[in-house]
Amino acid sequence: MRITVCCTDTKIAPWLEGLRSALPGAEVEEWRPGAPEADHAVVWAPPQAFLDEQQALRGIFNIGAGVDALMKLRLPPRAVVVRLDDAGMSVQMAEFVCHAVIRHFRELDGYERDEAQGKWGFRKPRARADYPVGVMGLGVLGERVAQAVAAFEFPVRGWSRSAKHLSGVECFAGTAQFDAFLAGTRILVNLLPLTPDTENLLDRQTLGKLLPGAYVINVARGAHVVDEDLIAAIDGGHLAGAALDVFRIEPLPADHPFWRHPKITVTPHTSARTLREESIAQIARKLRAFERGEPIAGVVDRMKGY
Amino acid sequence: MRITVCCTDTKIAPWLEGLRSALPGAEVEEWRPGAPEADHAVVWAPPQAFLDEQQALRGIFNIGAGVDALMKLRLPPRAVVVRLDDAGMSVQMAEFVCHAVIRHFRELDGYERDEAQGKWGFRKPRARADYPVGVMGLGVLGERVAQAVAAFEFPVRGWSRSAKHLSGVECFAGTAQFDAFLAGTRILVNLLPLTPDTENLLDRQTLGKLLPGAYVINVARGAHVVDEDLIAAIDGGHLAGAALDVFRIEPLPADHPFWRHPKITVTPHTSARTLREESIAQIARKLRAFERGEPIAGVVDRMKGY
Repeated sequence: MRITVCCTDTKIAPWLEGLRSALPGAEVEEWRPGAPEADHAVVWAPPQAFLDEQQALRGIFNIGAGVDALMKLRLPPRAVVVRLDDAGMSVQMAEFVCHAVIRHFRELDGYERDEAQGKWGFRKPRARADYPVGVMGLGVLGERVAQAVAAFEFPVRGWSRSAKHLSGVECFAGTAQFDAFLAGTRILVNLLPLTPDTENLLDRQTLGKLLPGAYVINVARGAHVVDEDLIAAIDGGHLAGAALDVFRIEPLPADHPFWRHPKITVTPHTSARTLREESIAQIARKLRAFERGEPIAGVVDRMKGY
Repeated sequence: MRITVCCTDTKIAPWLEGLRSALPGAEVEEWRPGAPEADHAVVWAPPQAFLDEQQALRGIFNIGAGVDALMKLRLPPRAVVVRLDDAGMSVQMAEFVCHAVIRHFRELDGYERDEAQGKWGFRKPRARADYPVGVMGLGVLGERVAQAVAAFEFPVRGWSRSAKHLSGVECFAGTAQFDAFLAGTRILVNLLPLTPDTENLLDRQTLGKLLPGAYVINVARGAHVVDEDLIAAIDGGHLAGAALDVFRIEPLPADHPFWRHPKITVTPHTSARTLREESIAQIARKLRAFERGEPIAGVVDRMKGY
């Protein structure tokens, strides 16, 4: 079995080494133009030229949870695209989102500004019932996040394309229930896959349907949000602010207004990093199962785009 | 039944109103010097004069979890002291501590400083296994905090006076196991009751036994910590920093070095506020049970002091 590795923006040597030791029978090489055709590929943001050359691929293993960049390319005809599920990412996502939810709800950002001024003063505690948290996207990451938030006794609601049932989470599904989901949400957490259907979903109209004083946490993709509409909704007073970890262009350009906006927190796409060891172990496990013809988790539906 | 209410630093009218409607059979009045002797008292930081006059008290219900200030006073001979257990405080404590743990572990404070400089850059992810969280004090609040932290997959250890068994928490007990507890702790969370035994417990010697780069979260009482020793341990490099919510003198005096220390976060004793409605409901429930001669939770052991 031949495996080709093509990961841009990634230190590739430890991936090669890890995959070789996890898959002792396989030939694992970094892709170079003109390299022999491989059976499987391990990729991150590969160029179109790679896919055009590697027409014999049966499996393309993406070293991230989001495959939106990959799904915009022309793929080899037989290739099954497999994304990481979890691999240490869901706990990171739960951490990052809970931190942002608690920080906003408990006004710990405000207390930090007070501290800088040497000011000792209480803020009136907010009622948890007034801060329902709505999670968009209920895959492996969304489910974990919803449950982590629920452990802090917030009312939690979830929205997904197809109907789901999660204990302790009020679930909404499809376009028909989207408005009802938004209308009862004070803290919105976006964990949707990026597809043509979800691009620009968080625009003026959608944000306007959230409860007054809503707060937006985006940990999915920058292109879900219409940047100007988000800023307008905050400046107009309908939204209290936003915590943004993902952007249309990354790194976020130096002149982007998000950087300096006092009610927007910017982090550099760090909410859930790919952990190499866990990811290599997962890819090796899935690859072996795939070769034995067994079903594996994380296979991308090309029609849905995730 | 006569109930007297004596709460300093507290808006008293809503407490009187709430207790009256929760205990329709009782006579509930604010204490004034010379008032008739009552059967029970609802108190927060009462003066010694109050206790000296109210010698017939059978129950003293403290509207907080910590009774250290009360236990320093001379109490009426028959009075049983009852503290709040939970009443909406444990979830607040879990929130506050998880926020501080995640913020430190994920370096979200550092990312915020980067943001202020318009800097986009990754920090190498830390390994969760390198950040065992040690919770001192395993009462209602400590147990909830330990379990909330464990949900984020940190190794969690607990230390208490008497041996406890909590699922998913490595438990240590008593002075004999204190050093072993400290030696494996990178993030220390203090939730101990303040007693003569625990006062000044976090001093140079104790802090020095924590893992290098340890972080201290104090949400119990200021007098657990020797302020100068904490600062020296941070400035000397053994500790990475601290999040402090409680202080020897509150409000924290304007000239105290904690305010301006770059590695110390100060909040104004806000980690778990007494929630009036929940507290009134709990006190009313306990009072009725106490009058019926039934056992109630939160009875303070005068010998132990909590």
